[in-house]
Amino acid sequence: MSRTIPEQLTELKNFFEQKAEKLFPSVVPEAPVLGDAMAYSYHAGGKRIRPILSIAAAKALGKDPETIIPAALAIEMVHTYSLIHDDLPAMDNDDLRRGKPTSHIKYGEALAILAGDGLLTEAFRVAAEETGRGGISPGGQLHFIKKLSESAGIRGMVAGQVMDMEHPESKDADFLKQLHLRKTGAMIQLSCLVPAILWETPEKLYRALEDYGEKIGLLFQVTDDILDETATLAELGKTPGKDREQHKLTYLSVYGLNGARKLADSLLKDALMVLTNLPNPELLAGIARFIRERNH
Amino acid sequence: MSRTIPEQLTELKNFFEQKAEKLFPSVVPEAPVLGDAMAYSYHAGGKRIRPILSIAAAKALGKDPETIIPAALAIEMVHTYSLIHDDLPAMDNDDLRRGKPTSHIKYGEALAILAGDGLLTEAFRVAAEETGRGGISPGGQLHFIKKLSESAGIRGMVAGQVMDMEHPESKDADFLKQLHLRKTGAMIQLSCLVPAILWETPEKLYRALEDYGEKIGLLFQVTDDILDETATLAELGKTPGKDREQHKLTYLSVYGLNGARKLADSLLKDALMVLTNLPNPELLAGIARFIRERNH
Repeated sequence: MSRTIPEQLTELKNFFEQKAEKLFPSVVPEAPVLGDAMAYSYHAGGKRIRPILSIAAAKALGKDPETIIPAALAIEMVHTYSLIHDDLPAMDNDDLRRGKPTSHIKYGEALAILAGDGLLTEAFRVAAEETGRGGISPGGQLHFIKKLSESAGIRGMVAGQVMDMEHPESKDADFLKQLHLRKTGAMIQLSCLVPAILWETPEKLYRALEDYGEKIGLLFQVTDDILDETATLAELGKTPGKDREQHKLTYLSVYGLNGARKLADSLLKDALMVLTNLPNPELLAGIARFIRERNH
Repeated sequence: MSRTIPEQLTELKNFFEQKAEKLFPSVVPEAPVLGDAMAYSYHAGGKRIRPILSIAAAKALGKDPETIIPAALAIEMVHTYSLIHDDLPAMDNDDLRRGKPTSHIKYGEALAILAGDGLLTEAFRVAAEETGRGGISPGGQLHFIKKLSESAGIRGMVAGQVMDMEHPESKDADFLKQLHLRKTGAMIQLSCLVPAILWETPEKLYRALEDYGEKIGLLFQVTDDILDETATLAELGKTPGKDREQHKLTYLSVYGLNGARKLADSLLKDALMVLTNLPNPELLAGIARFIRERNH
């Protein structure tokens, strides 16, 4: 009877994509190619891990998951913009993402920049215009917009990106943590906090989701670094061992493979522990275990 | 006794810059160069025409101009980001702006992209976090964020940018108007609407500012095109006649010099006429006349 975590994740992904589809602005009448470029990257096969976390967090609080869909979409649009800009020639210069041509390869660099700008700006429109359903107050909406801008911007993701660019050779464990708390951690943590932000939520529950979000954000990065070393080409969908070849600053370069595995176990344990403060934490617990055990 | 319009504009610019300074996020502790790059472009000598319009519109409605400063700052930050991204090699590829090296020349292309992303994201943080002063309701703040995202994004500025890129040889007057209503017009119109958006304002006053904003947004572009042909190098601060040399789609290429002058006069007349619906329209009227008569 009971479904496996991968089955549940697929179900939650489908739930999100179906509900979010009508809110996604894929048609831009005055500039159709802009709408095409935005939709191309948004529909490029992402795992939707951030929306899934928001839905699971809503369930953990006993809230209706459908209410958080617009906020989850705003986060996923910000995530999509960040991938488009990260792939640009001046940044990571990647031609392929998930086996498909990146935005600037398909649409040219100028349109890729503008598609990213459009997705980021439109994410805030969705946040302002669509998150007020299901009894969410204007104060709750404003709180979400504030956290979205903090997590995505110069206190979060954009700062992390600059830290990564400016210190590629740094080998300090604390710097590595601070970098990942911002570069990927802030938006993952925000995803977990969505229901606690939109609804007025007791401090204890808010803190539990905040702590859980921080732990699994880091766990995600540590397991990413482990997989780059240990996974096969088929599992990873890209050449493994690239981090080491490029002398990248990773959890493996700082802790070694065994150290990174111990750190991952410890982050998982911490994440599971804070969840005991939530009413219905089973799904969030399953996701944390899945992130630790995944092979791609 | 009475000051000239240029004197008043300087005074309003100083008022804005002084009040906005403490709200501008120029220090990013984890990534100092990011804060530097954002501040460099923000302080690069812009005329602050958009904040001045917001202040003048507040005065026209008899509202306290200080209350609109955070919203005006958010708009100016979005304007600054758009200049950074427009100047990028993949876009207009400009090395100089207002006589100074552009962001990507000074900081490199990757950091210029991220400084733009940071300014855009941070503009929404300012909008969510700082616009609630002086009795502005959360509903008024949300209304502003919604209009900011619409005017800056795929219904406004970003769409206009793509229209400009995709159809550089089009010669149609209506296309030209639709392009400029979005590319520069939407954010100028929004600047005029700020007080009407933040405060609940009677429909008639809202529409008057909306109409005025549309007219002077277009007037600004028409006079820009005229000046490119008629101003001297010293007046313009850049080589005149460049539009014609590059066969750009401008109001002169569509209407000719005399036709463009007539259009400018007609837009000014329309702008002045709608202002009669406002309690204190004198400053807005002076700004409209100044835009028509300026020589740089």
